[in-house]
Amino acid sequence: MNNLESNACLLGNNPIGDDPVCHDLIREWQATRARSEALCEPLSVEDMSLQADVFVSPPKWHLAHTTWFFETFILKVLIPKYAPFHPRFEYLFNSYYNSVGEQFDRNKRGLLSRPSLDDVIAYRRYVDSHMEPLLTGQHELSDDEIQILQTRCELGIHHEKQHQELLLMDIRYSLFQNPLLPAYSKSFSSMVTDSSEQGWINHEGGLIEIGAISNMEGNKKGDKLGDNKTGSAEGFCFDNEKPRHATYLEPYTIAQNLVTNREYLAFIESGGYGRPELWLADGWSQVKTNAWCAPLYWLKEGSQWHTFTLAGLQPLDLDAPVTNISGYEAAAFAEYADARLPTEAEWEYAVGQSEALKSNRNHDPLKNNSLNQVYTHGWQWTASAYQAYPGFRPEQGAIGEYNGKFMSNQWVLRGGAAISPKNHLRKTYRNFFYPQDRWITSAIRLAR
Amino acid sequence: MNNLESNACLLGNNPIGDDPVCHDLIREWQATRARSEALCEPLSVEDMSLQADVFVSPPKWHLAHTTWFFETFILKVLIPKYAPFHPRFEYLFNSYYNSVGEQFDRNKRGLLSRPSLDDVIAYRRYVDSHMEPLLTGQHELSDDEIQILQTRCELGIHHEKQHQELLLMDIRYSLFQNPLLPAYSKSFSSMVTDSSEQGWINHEGGLIEIGAISNMEGNKKGDKLGDNKTGSAEGFCFDNEKPRHATYLEPYTIAQNLVTNREYLAFIESGGYGRPELWLADGWSQVKTNAWCAPLYWLKEGSQWHTFTLAGLQPLDLDAPVTNISGYEAAAFAEYADARLPTEAEWEYAVGQSEALKSNRNHDPLKNNSLNQVYTHGWQWTASAYQAYPGFRPEQGAIGEYNGKFMSNQWVLRGGAAISPKNHLRKTYRNFFYPQDRWITSAIRLAR
Amino acid sequence: MNNLESNACLLGNNPIGDDPVCHDLIREWQATRARSEALCEPLSVEDMSLQADVFVSPPKWHLAHTTWFFETFILKVLIPKYAPFHPRFEYLFNSYYNSVGEQFDRNKRGLLSRPSLDDVIAYRRYVDSHMEPLLTGQHELSDDEIQILQTRCELGIHHEKQHQELLLMDIRYSLFQNPLLPAYSKSFSSMVTDSSEQGWINHEGGLIEIGAISNMEGNKKGDKLGDNKTGSAEGFCFDNEKPRHATYLEPYTIAQNLVTNREYLAFIESGGYGRPELWLADGWSQVKTNAWCAPLYWLKEGSQWHTFTLAGLQPLDLDAPVTNISGYEAAAFAEYADARLPTEAEWEYAVGQSEALKSNRNHDPLKNNSLNQVYTHGWQWTASAYQAYPGFRPEQGAIGEYNGKFMSNQWVLRGGAAISPKNHLRKTYRNFFYPQDRWITSAIRLAR
Amino acid sequence: MNNLESNACLLGNNPIGDDPVCHDLIREWQATRARSEALCEPLSVEDMSLQADVFVSPPKWHLAHTTWFFETFILKVLIPKYAPFHPRFEYLFNSYYNSVGEQFDRNKRGLLSRPSLDDVIAYRRYVDSHMEPLLTGQHELSDDEIQILQTRCELGIHHEKQHQELLLMDIRYSLFQNPLLPAYSKSFSSMVTDSSEQGWINHEGGLIEIGAISNMEGNKKGDKLGDNKTGSAEGFCFDNEKPRHATYLEPYTIAQNLVTNREYLAFIESGGYGRPELWLADGWSQVKTNAWCAPLYWLKEGSQWHTFTLAGLQPLDLDAPVTNISGYEAAAFAEYADARLPTEAEWEYAVGQSEALKSNRNHDPLKNNSLNQVYTHGWQWTASAYQAYPGFRPEQGAIGEYNGKFMSNQWVLRGGAAISPKNHLRKTYRNFFYPQDRWITSAIRLAR
Repeated sequence: MNNLESNACLLGNNPIGDDPVCHDLIREWQATRARSEALCEPLSVEDMSLQADVFVSPPKWHLAHTTWFFETFILKVLIPKYAPFHPRFEYLFNSYYNSVGEQFDRNKRGLLSRPSLDDVIAYRRYVDSHMEPLLTGQHELSDDEIQILQTRCELGIHHEKQHQELLLMDIRYSLFQNPLLPAYSKSFSSMVTDSSEQGWINHEGGLIEIGAISNMEGNKKGDKLGDNKTGSAEGFCFDNEKPRHATYLEPYTIAQNLVTNREYLAFIESGGYGRPELWLADGWSQVKTNAWCAPLYWLKEGSQWHTFTLAGLQPLDLDAPVTNISGYEAAAFAEYADARLPTEAEWEYAVGQSEALKSNRNHDPLKNNSLNQVYTHGWQWTASAYQAYPGFRPEQGAIGEYNGKFMSNQWVLRGGAAISPKNHLRKTYRNFFYPQDRWITSAIRLAR
Repeated sequence: MNNLESNACLLGNNPIGDDPVCHDLIREWQATRARSEALCEPLSVEDMSLQADVFVSPPKWHLAHTTWFFETFILKVLIPKYAPFHPRFEYLFNSYYNSVGEQFDRNKRGLLSRPSLDDVIAYRRYVDSHMEPLLTGQHELSDDEIQILQTRCELGIHHEKQHQELLLMDIRYSLFQNPLLPAYSKSFSSMVTDSSEQGWINHEGGLIEIGAISNMEGNKKGDKLGDNKTGSAEGFCFDNEKPRHATYLEPYTIAQNLVTNREYLAFIESGGYGRPELWLADGWSQVKTNAWCAPLYWLKEGSQWHTFTLAGLQPLDLDAPVTNISGYEAAAFAEYADARLPTEAEWEYAVGQSEALKSNRNHDPLKNNSLNQVYTHGWQWTASAYQAYPGFRPEQGAIGEYNGKFMSNQWVLRGGAAISPKNHLRKTYRNFFYPQDRWITSAIRLAR
Repeated sequence: MNNLESNACLLGNNPIGDDPVCHDLIREWQATRARSEALCEPLSVEDMSLQADVFVSPPKWHLAHTTWFFETFILKVLIPKYAPFHPRFEYLFNSYYNSVGEQFDRNKRGLLSRPSLDDVIAYRRYVDSHMEPLLTGQHELSDDEIQILQTRCELGIHHEKQHQELLLMDIRYSLFQNPLLPAYSKSFSSMVTDSSEQGWINHEGGLIEIGAISNMEGNKKGDKLGDNKTGSAEGFCFDNEKPRHATYLEPYTIAQNLVTNREYLAFIESGGYGRPELWLADGWSQVKTNAWCAPLYWLKEGSQWHTFTLAGLQPLDLDAPVTNISGYEAAAFAEYADARLPTEAEWEYAVGQSEALKSNRNHDPLKNNSLNQVYTHGWQWTASAYQAYPGFRPEQGAIGEYNGKFMSNQWVLRGGAAISPKNHLRKTYRNFFYPQDRWITSAIRLAR
Repeated sequence: MNNLESNACLLGNNPIGDDPVCHDLIREWQATRARSEALCEPLSVEDMSLQADVFVSPPKWHLAHTTWFFETFILKVLIPKYAPFHPRFEYLFNSYYNSVGEQFDRNKRGLLSRPSLDDVIAYRRYVDSHMEPLLTGQHELSDDEIQILQTRCELGIHHEKQHQELLLMDIRYSLFQNPLLPAYSKSFSSMVTDSSEQGWINHEGGLIEIGAISNMEGNKKGDKLGDNKTGSAEGFCFDNEKPRHATYLEPYTIAQNLVTNREYLAFIESGGYGRPELWLADGWSQVKTNAWCAPLYWLKEGSQWHTFTLAGLQPLDLDAPVTNISGYEAAAFAEYADARLPTEAEWEYAVGQSEALKSNRNHDPLKNNSLNQVYTHGWQWTASAYQAYPGFRPEQGAIGEYNGKFMSNQWVLRGGAAISPKNHLRKTYRNFFYPQDRWITSAIRLAR
């Protein structure tokens, strides 16, 4: 599906100077664009339009919206007299950027049988075919424009990676509404479980720093991590991870591993969903209103628990981490376990310490002192409400709506999930969802 | 698409005796099954899954449900050890027959990306391939079973015709939610307008009879109408049209023609939607809650009214009958026009008199005394709540849920619409909808 | 509480001529005004403000609204330069008369702590003190004005009687929300049960007449009934009872007695609330949505059923008629009993025949052929939707909103209840409620 | 209304040793109990039952619930065989303590016409008459029991003070629903406005401490503040103010004065309610859903803004601080003013510095460097989500539900309001409400 058939021109005509970052950026852009479509291969045309609730979007919409992002924030800005692919797409595929204009009703995305999937693919081709000359230096751009191009292209890539994860979350949820419980892909690999004993790591706390170093600085200092999956993409970070700042931690203990399905099942069987004293008041209200009695995708058939995955219904793996629980369930489990959720600062500091240990390749203490399952199974609910870091200022203009305006009522999650894209995760990444959300690939790491 | 390639066998092997009705029945069944699929030809696979509100269903669902009807009420009853096409389809495609079993949530029909459209077409082929040997006498059936086969096949045909009309109503409504306002088919013919002067026909009233003559009697008496479209299909009627019974009418006057868009526009421009004294209390509540200010499909662009049709957005034809108005709007318009809606008895008697006049081919008085636009533009709201005729008893078993259980809160509409199937309409036909429904092809005929 | 201390002036100065009706009217007006306040005697000031749901009103509001009726439709019309008691009461105590002006939100009537109860009583005194000189001829009125005064005073009396019944219905419902289950009045007499055997009365049907004779005619013909309670109040009727008109009845059978609690309990115990085939579709939807499983006021304590009455919680009297059931429950019970509800024409004709029989004082056939419990226990749901009689025209102006605009979605009930006021009931009376309403004193009389 | 007519016994028979705190506690308890009832003096019996929305409670309910608190957590615990006043009051007047048992539906508190106001006053007398012997040493109590008595009595006093403020907030809101806009008390004094120039105070930040010193320590250290109103009540604090802990602050600037109505009006007139870029996403959603266009109690009559106060409708005082705005409005105003809300740590540190300055009575720098309007006009929204301090553990048992379980989705407010009780406010006090709440006496203090 990749429409950039040769890299030759890119090598000889680099618009952004000699920095090899540029080639990496183009390759990452190509790979990201291609992967979004590849993710849709197991889906039928009908699946591509599914929207089972207001908080999910159809796969087709994800394909169009991520394209809209490049068109709106790069092509319309940098190409004089750019002719948009379709006059109404600005309206149809704007997610929530009020500064760009009004948006089509989020509830009705599943009703957009037109534009057809073919039209959306054509939209992708059209936008990519305009992005390519920009990226390969075939337009004359000022230094400021080159800066905009590079910054927004990088943002657009990470935006599209976020939507790749959303696409998988959303389609799992939408397929789950079908009594036939169809699989996204029967061959979709489920996670290998590492069933080590739970351990606890102590930290002294004190005045520490969290948050991302600003991009420029990051590039200079080469703040790279050993593991490609978890590394920062050339120092990229979202605005909400900045500025790096001091914070004070009391001594704390954090769990090496995530809470398992086995442990969560014990919570259920002990009557956890019927004990209000374990729950936050708003959480208890959700339990009663929605009759929650198990994680979202758990189904009991006879005496055997199953879980609905992208590969279809599977017997519950008791040694795997529990996922797809709301923040309220995570907090109630922690209360039940005589523990609590870590704050995001505690989490980030512990992960930083653990990664430093690993990079020292000092394997002896590693087994006992490093965190496991950080980026591999599920985003870990923290005890921190999603709020601005001290000194945070969102980007100017519509791009500034990306993160800042969501800083109320949501909780921070850290780490990453099995379905998270490569080259996307890092220890400073602040994911955020409402504490009642359950269709996300969330998990529980305890602290005390 | 028709899977019955030859009629030869049918002629030589008639399961239901020598009555030519039988050949007609098979032909009608074939034509009906074929037409449902033909109606979907202008639609994309994605369109086929559209469900824009709880009161509409996706075209794919209509194709499956009408097939389910034959499978459930004929194949499962008459074929020993019949193997259903799919074990869960009984649940998925049951509309509202509680006696058959539970039903999939009506709200979520649009979420059934699986079974795919191909699967649904295969379902149709499978059921048709089992129906065919039954209809052509290749199963040994008792007389009672032949009676069941004939009766239910006829009902199934009319059931499918009803869904053909629903399919067009529903897809029009669903496409209307799309800001691109896509057409079902640009070549879909809109109605030719006959712009004759309004006239009024007086009736003396008195003790008259309405309702359908029972089938057997009907066949004997050959109660056929001259116009094929409006004729009864070999005397078929639904249970709710029976029994034929006496009712007393005061003298009344009924309008020859339907209310036009021009007249309705005058009502709007006179402030009709802002005058509570014209409205029923429940209707006024709808006006305020939903901010009604024009018929459902009317859109004003600049100073020009348009209407959204199956052929896309069209300039409003002022001489055409107004359609897609709720019962409340019909009643308010009547009040505004110093008139009222006819009762269903008044309507049926007037149409009967008019049809008798026509069949006498006495053309001179015809122009002044016959009703126009009876079956051609829109179902005409009556002043009659949908209730049982005296002596009405629904069919036994699940089939009895077809009509009887809806006899509350709905109003009777009479006549037919441009999108109504052929061989389906008759003067005793009692269509019914909630007075707030607007996605139906309704119209207004006044009385005094 | 009666502020008209002497009738002397009335006798000597009769504004409406020598007709003794006039004295009766004044006496009835006095008695009615007094009774509304007497009904509130068992209530505390706090009870007087209770509104437990949108369909009930606080007792204090009933006292004010019935007063508003006389002020709005008589005092403001007939007294030049009449000074309203309070400028905002027109808004606060208008129930639904759009022609009079906007209305205070019906949902919030319980929030009107001000005007206080004392203020409302003062309002009553003020309006009564202006009504009295009008009624006793101390204003010079034209013949037309005298006609308006008489007609509207009579209407206002019956309006207030309706609200007396509503007041008792409403306070029962509101008190029922209190877990302490307080009684309206412990000494409130419950009905004596007459536990005769059920019998059925056959009627031939044919072309009969129903509806009220117009007032003038009624007065002339002296269409009075022997029983004071059930008699027409000097021929008064609401506009919706007219015109008297012919209708055709098929032969039918109607039950002598109402369905008892014992019979209804058998319906419950046979699983009636779990059998969708017995229910209208909209009724079944109510059963599921609201988890109906017994009549509104039934409570089971241990194995013993109780019912909440105006005298507090009482053991269920199995021989008494079941009351406070919705129209859907009535229809489902009838289906279960292999019967149906009578139409309003069937009901009225049967009651008329029965009353004629009684007035003939032919006691022998009486026992077997007259209807029992017609006006004494509960309003009897009919199978008739509430619609206009042929030729019905509502009154001109705001008064015309009294009945006509409610002619959709409601069902007619006939007869009367234990809490109905005296001199208020008659066989042509068309009460109407939504079929889902259960706080009304409804009952079931079967037909076949 | 005070039922403790003599203090004699208290002086001679002190149950909790010689500590003069004890006398203070008893006096404070007496005064608090008396003040709750005094606050109701301007209200009619009907006002006492008003509940205009689910988030407010009737005054009568407040009187009963605060009494329930003493009965449940002291009398039932410390008095052997204590006979509760009424067996159902535990259920009726439990607000949200799941550990105590189920609660009457919060929505229906306004429907409790019974128990009557007289009954509730009798309940207060009964509980007080059992509290008095306990407090004056007429029961033999162990040291642990004395500790429980003292701690819970102090908590009960502050609990009742919180409800005194709620009572005034709630009745203002409930009266506001009445179109007559009745005043709580026409003589209720509105705040004197101090219209000094806005100033900004700079703080260096660094590692500082916030939170309350634990009670015992507090008593020892005599952490008293000069101003009686704002001082801690003998070191009392809620569990959520503890533990005192270190936190790191970046340099910041905080406003001396609250935002005025004049400034807020400029925000409105600049189109602030129509500029989504100023708002948090959830806030913008509230603006659109609820059509917010001004603070809750602002009403425009002609061209003049008024505000509804406890003294009735008043012309808007442009120099007074704006109050009764949601957290979303506070945050949007801050964005508009190119500022932000302070965090709770910034607020508490700045107030601490300001109070230290004041206690030094160094008046010269005072004018420029101390915060104004800290406890006097309205609770100041902070940028901090309401969450547990590091090391926070709620109390054991039902008392532990007091604060901890609300730590999600709410925001912290600091300071106090004109209607806050005396001896109740302190700089560590963490008030909390949902960011959409507007019926609270909230205000805006900016930071940068």
